[in-house]
Amino acid sequence: MSGIVVQNIARADLSIIDGLARCGVATVHEAQGRTGLLASTMRPIYPGARIAGSAVTISAPPGDNWMVHAAIEQLRQGDILVLAPTSPCEDGYFGDLLATSAIAHGCRGLVIDAGVRDVRDLTAMQFPVWSKAVFAQGTVKNTLGSVNVPVVCAGAAIQPGDVIVADDDGVCVVPREKAEDVLAAAQAREANEAAKRDKLAAGILGLDMYGMRERLAAEGLKYV
Amino acid sequence: MSGIVVQNIARADLSIIDGLARCGVATVHEAQGRTGLLASTMRPIYPGARIAGSAVTISAPPGDNWMVHAAIEQLRQGDILVLAPTSPCEDGYFGDLLATSAIAHGCRGLVIDAGVRDVRDLTAMQFPVWSKAVFAQGTVKNTLGSVNVPVVCAGAAIQPGDVIVADDDGVCVVPREKAEDVLAAAQAREANEAAKRDKLAAGILGLDMYGMRERLAAEGLKYV
Amino acid sequence: MSGIVVQNIARADLSIIDGLARCGVATVHEAQGRTGLLASTMRPIYPGARIAGSAVTISAPPGDNWMVHAAIEQLRQGDILVLAPTSPCEDGYFGDLLATSAIAHGCRGLVIDAGVRDVRDLTAMQFPVWSKAVFAQGTVKNTLGSVNVPVVCAGAAIQPGDVIVADDDGVCVVPREKAEDVLAAAQAREANEAAKRDKLAAGILGLDMYGMRERLAAEGLKYV
Amino acid sequence: MSGIVVQNIARADLSIIDGLARCGVATVHEAQGRTGLLASTMRPIYPGARIAGSAVTISAPPGDNWMVHAAIEQLRQGDILVLAPTSPCEDGYFGDLLATSAIAHGCRGLVIDAGVRDVRDLTAMQFPVWSKAVFAQGTVKNTLGSVNVPVVCAGAAIQPGDVIVADDDGVCVVPREKAEDVLAAAQAREANEAAKRDKLAAGILGLDMYGMRERLAAEGLKYV
Amino acid sequence: MSGIVVQNIARADLSIIDGLARCGVATVHEAQGRTGLLASTMRPIYPGARIAGSAVTISAPPGDNWMVHAAIEQLRQGDILVLAPTSPCEDGYFGDLLATSAIAHGCRGLVIDAGVRDVRDLTAMQFPVWSKAVFAQGTVKNTLGSVNVPVVCAGAAIQPGDVIVADDDGVCVVPREKAEDVLAAAQAREANEAAKRDKLAAGILGLDMYGMRERLAAEGLKYV
Amino acid sequence: MSGIVVQNIARADLSIIDGLARCGVATVHEAQGRTGLLASTMRPIYPGARIAGSAVTISAPPGDNWMVHAAIEQLRQGDILVLAPTSPCEDGYFGDLLATSAIAHGCRGLVIDAGVRDVRDLTAMQFPVWSKAVFAQGTVKNTLGSVNVPVVCAGAAIQPGDVIVADDDGVCVVPREKAEDVLAAAQAREANEAAKRDKLAAGILGLDMYGMRERLAAEGLKYV
Repeated sequence: MSGIVVQNIARADLSIIDGLARCGVATVHEAQGRTGLLASTMRPIYPGARIAGSAVTISAPPGDNWMVHAAIEQLRQGDILVLAPTSPCEDGYFGDLLATSAIAHGCRGLVIDAGVRDVRDLTAMQFPVWSKAVFAQGTVKNTLGSVNVPVVCAGAAIQPGDVIVADDDGVCVVPREKAEDVLAAAQAREANEAAKRDKLAAGILGLDMYGMRERLAAEGLKYV
Repeated sequence: MSGIVVQNIARADLSIIDGLARCGVATVHEAQGRTGLLASTMRPIYPGARIAGSAVTISAPPGDNWMVHAAIEQLRQGDILVLAPTSPCEDGYFGDLLATSAIAHGCRGLVIDAGVRDVRDLTAMQFPVWSKAVFAQGTVKNTLGSVNVPVVCAGAAIQPGDVIVADDDGVCVVPREKAEDVLAAAQAREANEAAKRDKLAAGILGLDMYGMRERLAAEGLKYV
Repeated sequence: MSGIVVQNIARADLSIIDGLARCGVATVHEAQGRTGLLASTMRPIYPGARIAGSAVTISAPPGDNWMVHAAIEQLRQGDILVLAPTSPCEDGYFGDLLATSAIAHGCRGLVIDAGVRDVRDLTAMQFPVWSKAVFAQGTVKNTLGSVNVPVVCAGAAIQPGDVIVADDDGVCVVPREKAEDVLAAAQAREANEAAKRDKLAAGILGLDMYGMRERLAAEGLKYV
Repeated sequence: MSGIVVQNIARADLSIIDGLARCGVATVHEAQGRTGLLASTMRPIYPGARIAGSAVTISAPPGDNWMVHAAIEQLRQGDILVLAPTSPCEDGYFGDLLATSAIAHGCRGLVIDAGVRDVRDLTAMQFPVWSKAVFAQGTVKNTLGSVNVPVVCAGAAIQPGDVIVADDDGVCVVPREKAEDVLAAAQAREANEAAKRDKLAAGILGLDMYGMRERLAAEGLKYV
Repeated sequence: MSGIVVQNIARADLSIIDGLARCGVATVHEAQGRTGLLASTMRPIYPGARIAGSAVTISAPPGDNWMVHAAIEQLRQGDILVLAPTSPCEDGYFGDLLATSAIAHGCRGLVIDAGVRDVRDLTAMQFPVWSKAVFAQGTVKNTLGSVNVPVVCAGAAIQPGDVIVADDDGVCVVPREKAEDVLAAAQAREANEAAKRDKLAAGILGLDMYGMRERLAAEGLKYV
Repeated sequence: MSGIVVQNIARADLSIIDGLARCGVATVHEAQGRTGLLASTMRPIYPGARIAGSAVTISAPPGDNWMVHAAIEQLRQGDILVLAPTSPCEDGYFGDLLATSAIAHGCRGLVIDAGVRDVRDLTAMQFPVWSKAVFAQGTVKNTLGSVNVPVVCAGAAIQPGDVIVADDDGVCVVPREKAEDVLAAAQAREANEAAKRDKLAAGILGLDMYGMRERLAAEGLKYV
């Protein structure tokens, strides 16, 4: 099952990808029916980054980052590396040298259900990473994994070429073939939110704006 | 047990509440006999906030934020929303729209034993949140809970109207009826600390300042 | 076993210690054969600190910080306090008063497999702490522990006088008697990394730079 | 706040308590409106026990079991010891000697949000314990706590004298003054369940027995 | 995305399924290239069960077990219910009444990335469950989910109709279309193991039986 | 640092080792001053085993069990294998084939800060294992580790040849050179406990038997 590098994966248009980045994780997640979130254990190494890109996936053995090198060769401008270990691991698969190499090949960031290191340098380089751990533990290069195969990363099923959106709220995956529709839904949602925000800021209650009072009463809510 | 909104809860005086905010969590916690802390899993979404307010409590089902809307109507100037799910949950019950609404009704912040989202926006708005997770996962509005009933939030028993103090050290609850006494004790403690700090900064050892050497020797401490 | 303060421990030269600080945790860890890391649960209370120092170790009962006072007397310029509770505990053993005292006796920071409090003040003082929790929970002074005995802290065996290196990647211990050799290896590694970084930034792949292609093929990696 | 032993607490009738034991945790929890459960971290040290009793509560410092001795003196026939540490701790506060003593004073079991030891002996004695850890770590007797004060144990607020029900599903607390009503509701529920069980065993679907199909269709469930 | 029940899913032959059950999780997992394991958090409620069956999948909101009723209607002889909540939850979605109903419709067991209750009854009925929690917490029936859609359960991607193998070692999923091949590989592996076991029991070292000594020496292993 | 097999380690006398086994973990731990416990995450795969033996230690990379084979060659009658991964890992390093081999070389059990599999078979063989996980995940044989070097296993520092005691309460390490003294202290403690147990069973309170009342009063305990 392992030992495969898939070379030419399909990707969504960069204009769609960049649109999804502007919407952000919470909006995109809602826009696709509250699906696609990675677990909340995936945290950014520094606040403020908001990116989207096409997933170049890596299935790697615990404590072995050999396949990261193979994956970097597959990167195109606008991609995001997505690493899922084949069993739970928090080793630091990735640091500033790999980031330097990944950036040189167009990479926008890393999503890794394991550890990362050199976070001071990565922060200085503004190379964003979402990981479950920061851990200096080094890795070896002895066992094959695969690149651009389907993975489950932090509880979400990801196909190579799916769109990854990541910001301070976490990470969301959008299936490539749905990316355009999800973008449209997300943008509609955003337009809608501005009007709501104004009303709420003016003191109008959600109870009234969303017309909830009748249904709450029907369900039996009692005010005492 | 659920399906109740208590409307007119008693609150402590704002002058007392603001005094407790100035003392901060560690001092207040000590001043009331090392009680009242919420679990250390409650972390701020950004550093530097230090607030206090009266608890408007929410007991909500997992993954259902309907009651947050009912709670916002109950807010008064100087309140803090306190949400405890009825079973463990890390969904994002609260985001920037709800924060906009809560601020419009006088809310100073949110303490939630679950998740929060839109943290980039909340940070930009300087609306502080203490939560056990940052998670974009959306919620539904289908099942009743209650507002302003006693809750256990992150391991601490909280009555509506109790004073919540929160800063980078975590969150502490002060029973409303003890708030004035606790403030007095906290302020006395603070005054006391300044003098200690000066001595310690000058190099005087705690062993000497607190007169510990004799008791340590009595307990059998050996220097080798 | 407890109730002992060892007073005159051997330390590495400050020039070696400071050299290790400049190399940082990830490099030092690699330079000594990928050993010595504390668990990834040890996180800094604020980003950006990078320090090294000689370990003054504390073995303390859960919820009892009496021995911290005894340890501070043992500090010399350039030391780091290292506290391991005798059973798992996340209480806040240490706050701004103890930091004030520790600084007055030359302390560069604290590594604690438990909790810390007053983190806003500690951040303002730029006194760095690596801990497994931030928790305002106070402690008592009733039960003896020991100072400058061997401890296991966050999974790493530490001897008093060993060199502790800590930064945003975590914490690493270097046995005192190996510190000079490890520094040499770390510096060699750093020199080596600059050249690699330039090549990678220029787009040369790790696959080629490290000559991996042949071995990957031998292991059976397939490109499809 | 600590340093108090409340001596004569009110208790529910043993006939009510024993009735609740027969119903078990899941039924009692439902019968009181899905409230009162302790966290799922509370696990029995051996399977098959099902008990109920009046809570004799212990608030104890981390790693200090002094108050357990004070609590045993307060036991009456049919009581259950409930220990909540003042901060998270998994030390083994309780073993076979304390169990021998507790049994001699009428104790039916222990619920402890910390650790227990001598579990082989306790199993042989059939003294049931629900705990968050099994851990041989010993404790000291140096710091006061309290007996028969309100505690939060594993996330549930418990008053001394409340009824504790515990079995393989976990632990539930029933407020003393509601115990009789909850028992009636639980027994009604049980009677009701037998009829349901027969129908379900005969192959009648819950969809039909509970009349769910119409509401599912109204909510938009699609069969494809 | 939710609100769908897929009615006629393809299944593997029962003879293949039963063959996989006899091989057990560890062997099946090896036979399909060390893939398909669910997380180790999935533990059996009692030891000794070893089953296999076709997955009838349930995607359910947190704290809402409505879809379990819809799923039971879709069961065929030899199926296993597989429930994945849409966000992390440990509520007790399933108890003895649902088990009675599921058994009446041919169900062999339950795999649930959440909680289960009535485990004493389920054990007496010998209805095996693998879950991440035992928790009496009840659920509501207010929000739609889906039945027989692809899910990620405890970190593994599962299609409806895939073969689930479960025993004391955990849970493994075998893609339906690979089930026959995996069975053949597993049986070959088993045959092979018997011979190895005899040699090892006779004291022959794995170092010799697998011919490892040369490669260990080549890698630099030193005996001192 | 890795790549070493130490061949002739010193061991304690089997008579001492067997005496420690009879005392059990809790008593041994107390007898050596409440030190030496491994973390409570180390749980037995089946209840009732109580063993002691000399530690043959294994330092292994995550997901790589090559060194287990090298360690089995080093076993003597009465030894226990102790495996510590070089970074956190829960893979199943060990199953029934390795157990068969280990038993053939005199091994009494396994203590592993990682995973184990084939637990049904291991239980049938009555080969006891204490592990932090049961997980079928297989491992590779590609990277060297070491045998009979000092390790930190589940938070305890262990030297090869130290005595390991393990039972339902967990695992404790006794330094080899202290084993005889610890046995004497443990046996004295046991003799002492029998008399205490009789008194407590007769209803004498610990408060009286240990003479605690005066000190409790001096500390300020109030009966109300």
